[in-house]
Amino acid sequence: MVAGAIRAALRQCVLAEDIFQEVTDTSIAAGQQLVKHPLTKAVAFTGSFAGGKALFDLANQREEPIPVFAEMGSINPVVLLPGAIRDNKTLPTTIASSVLLGVGQFCTNPGLLIVVDTEGFASFLHKLSVEVAQAAPGTMLHAGIAANYKSKRAEALKEKGVLRLTEEKAETTDRQGAPALTLVNARDFIASTVLKEEVFGPYSLIVKCEDETELRQVIESLKGQLTGTVFGLPEELSEYKSSIDLLHARCGRLIFNGVPTGVEVTKAMQHGGPFPASTDSRFTSVGTDAIYRFVRPVAYQDFPEQFLPPQLKNNNELNILRCVNGTWTRNAVETFNLQQA
Amino acid sequence: MVAGAIRAALRQCVLAEDIFQEVTDTSIAAGQQLVKHPLTKAVAFTGSFAGGKALFDLANQREEPIPVFAEMGSINPVVLLPGAIRDNKTLPTTIASSVLLGVGQFCTNPGLLIVVDTEGFASFLHKLSVEVAQAAPGTMLHAGIAANYKSKRAEALKEKGVLRLTEEKAETTDRQGAPALTLVNARDFIASTVLKEEVFGPYSLIVKCEDETELRQVIESLKGQLTGTVFGLPEELSEYKSSIDLLHARCGRLIFNGVPTGVEVTKAMQHGGPFPASTDSRFTSVGTDAIYRFVRPVAYQDFPEQFLPPQLKNNNELNILRCVNGTWTRNAVETFNLQQA
Repeated sequence: MVAGAIRAALRQCVLAEDIFQEVTDTSIAAGQQLVKHPLTKAVAFTGSFAGGKALFDLANQREEPIPVFAEMGSINPVVLLPGAIRDNKTLPTTIASSVLLGVGQFCTNPGLLIVVDTEGFASFLHKLSVEVAQAAPGTMLHAGIAANYKSKRAEALKEKGVLRLTEEKAETTDRQGAPALTLVNARDFIASTVLKEEVFGPYSLIVKCEDETELRQVIESLKGQLTGTVFGLPEELSEYKSSIDLLHARCGRLIFNGVPTGVEVTKAMQHGGPFPASTDSRFTSVGTDAIYRFVRPVAYQDFPEQFLPPQLKNNNELNILRCVNGTWTRNAVETFNLQQA
Repeated sequence: MVAGAIRAALRQCVLAEDIFQEVTDTSIAAGQQLVKHPLTKAVAFTGSFAGGKALFDLANQREEPIPVFAEMGSINPVVLLPGAIRDNKTLPTTIASSVLLGVGQFCTNPGLLIVVDTEGFASFLHKLSVEVAQAAPGTMLHAGIAANYKSKRAEALKEKGVLRLTEEKAETTDRQGAPALTLVNARDFIASTVLKEEVFGPYSLIVKCEDETELRQVIESLKGQLTGTVFGLPEELSEYKSSIDLLHARCGRLIFNGVPTGVEVTKAMQHGGPFPASTDSRFTSVGTDAIYRFVRPVAYQDFPEQFLPPQLKNNNELNILRCVNGTWTRNAVETFNLQQA
């Protein structure tokens, strides 16, 4: 169905239909062959760290290495500042909805909630647990994803100091995933490698920090992320600036008082973050700028007007914004005889 | 001296002097350690293919791979169309000056001249040989570069079908490099791997093509290049369009009726081409856009005005061009109370 929609779009845009090809394969062999093919010039991938990193390595081992834009997962840390915990009455519902959205199968799912233990924390914890516990096990995309969710969740639960806040619910089919909310203190979180890995599904881990120093240490221990979120009062942003700066250095999109789930196809979207969230943090895989993954600049020096692509012709019939002698303009370039140049 | 100039520039720009550090080492160990250091986030390099590729591989083998922008050499093919050979009286002098400039030590040195054998070719060959032969051996940057030049030149001269057009001249010091002009036919060139490698120094190889088909085959056999040049009459560009398209697909800068040597620090400069000219053809290592090698985008979503960087504040006090709701503008953004959002 998706392939059909893309082909219809190509027809509508009067583009050659063959620029899109669909290959369906249950093994990883087809993908590997495509990445190794000499005519392949770039690769985009969404999936697991293991899958993306394998294709990245394969592409770099080619005689002619090619760029790989792999989006490989993220735990999307959400920092809950004291003001939000104390004053934001809808916060538990907001967070729970985001954790549970699409049975947690969003690459921007908030898998980590970092909280400083202050006034209202116990009440927040209780309300959030109730919200998450209310949700019935959901049907996931396929049995493989559901099995992976259960095994990653079980691994996380075995880690030192991890408490399950929601009761276990029966998963009656092999595609079902039951939500889970867990709690750990900052020191145990920092010491654990497993807890920094994504549990893809309706799961989130609360990290309890004693103070701002621990909050900073927790953020500092994180790898690259697609998103970083802060819930709080605007006046708290200066007070916690050093924590937010650390978050900024580790993510591609920084959100204030909103959930990370959901991406918008706009110019401002940045969907890609420092490794291992993606293999190339300078590009986005969602939004209009995503096309820059697949183009490279070519400078034309002293070519006659008639041989230039329309984007570079003096009259600017496409009415695009161009930098002409250092000035951005949509104006036509004053013509002169290039053949004499 | 260069380090001193950079430090003076940093002081003038009121930037922290320590953002620039100079490390001098005669082995490759220092460079390797810098590339492997966990705090290193990107690498730029200019030098040999072996050196650049080694750093690229090292950076990709890190636990957190980092981008490497290596500019690794190019033979900068120059296509001489029949009209230029026949009508352009100053062509031999123009080409010879570019080949000999700075004792050939430019990464954009025209190391390959591709010519279709038509009217005026013999005369062009004679004049160019005389021009190159007139030049005395020049002093190269250091003895290592001079030794490398002599060994690469000797390797090229041993290849099947290669004729030396200029007489050998004595190189009296270990830093001297004597110019050399050589000739080969298209078929021998296409069959050779050695002839497609850079001979860094005052050297150029003329490839004689019988017709346009051979011209296309020669260009098609080339790897990625920093530049591709065409000398000809404007009206020849349509006739040879398929050859020029092949050249376009293999270079970062396409030049008409000018020499490739010399790069300008402008917005329009593209100094970087498909592999192996550089490891990342999407970026330039010269020009104002070169800074994009060292930045990554971060999206701010719903942050209060006072916490945004100046580039994103509503009043646009930096007067930069910004895309606001799909429109490029320098106008201030109409303010509204973000705290209520």
